[in-house]
Amino acid sequence: MWFTPMKAYVYVSLKKSVLDPQGKTIQGALKKMGFKGLEEVRQGKYFELTLDGGLTRAEAESEVARIARDVLTNPVIEEFRFSLED
Amino acid sequence: MWFTPMKAYVYVSLKKSVLDPQGKTIQGALKKMGFKGLEEVRQGKYFELTLDGGLTRAEAESEVARIARDVLTNPVIEEFRFSLED
Repeated sequence: MWFTPMKAYVYVSLKKSVLDPQGKTIQGALKKMGFKGLEEVRQGKYFELTLDGGLTRAEAESEVARIARDVLTNPVIEEFRFSLED
Repeated sequence: MWFTPMKAYVYVSLKKSVLDPQGKTIQGALKKMGFKGLEEVRQGKYFELTLDGGLTRAEAESEVARIARDVLTNPVIEEFRFSLED
């Protein structure tokens, strides 16, 4: 067993079927500023978790999935994906 | 020249030297809920840009870098990274 910290990245975004007014606003602002070729902008949240390394990779994976699903995401309107590093 | 839409992902996070009270709050909540082994939580923003495909890859890259640097990031306290997907 090793104890190097492990990083996990969780990305939470609105489901495709949910309107994203914040993204739309950014898109409108960018267009006014002269940026071209933007079809859509959507905004989400991003979490960087540092785990203390007392977990195996499989344990870390299930812990992070549980945190993402139960705490960081509102399952009614949001979806998540995550990745582990190290 | 091709016109398939291209996706770009921009990740904006607080610089390491900047305190992240929102992340600390989430970390505290997770600890209270019984999640173990969490050393740090930091929250950032995440943007999904859809480009209309009228740009070459190199053009898209410089356009996205410019948007990320000039509009989506506050350079005083934040840093960004981005990736392009076809």
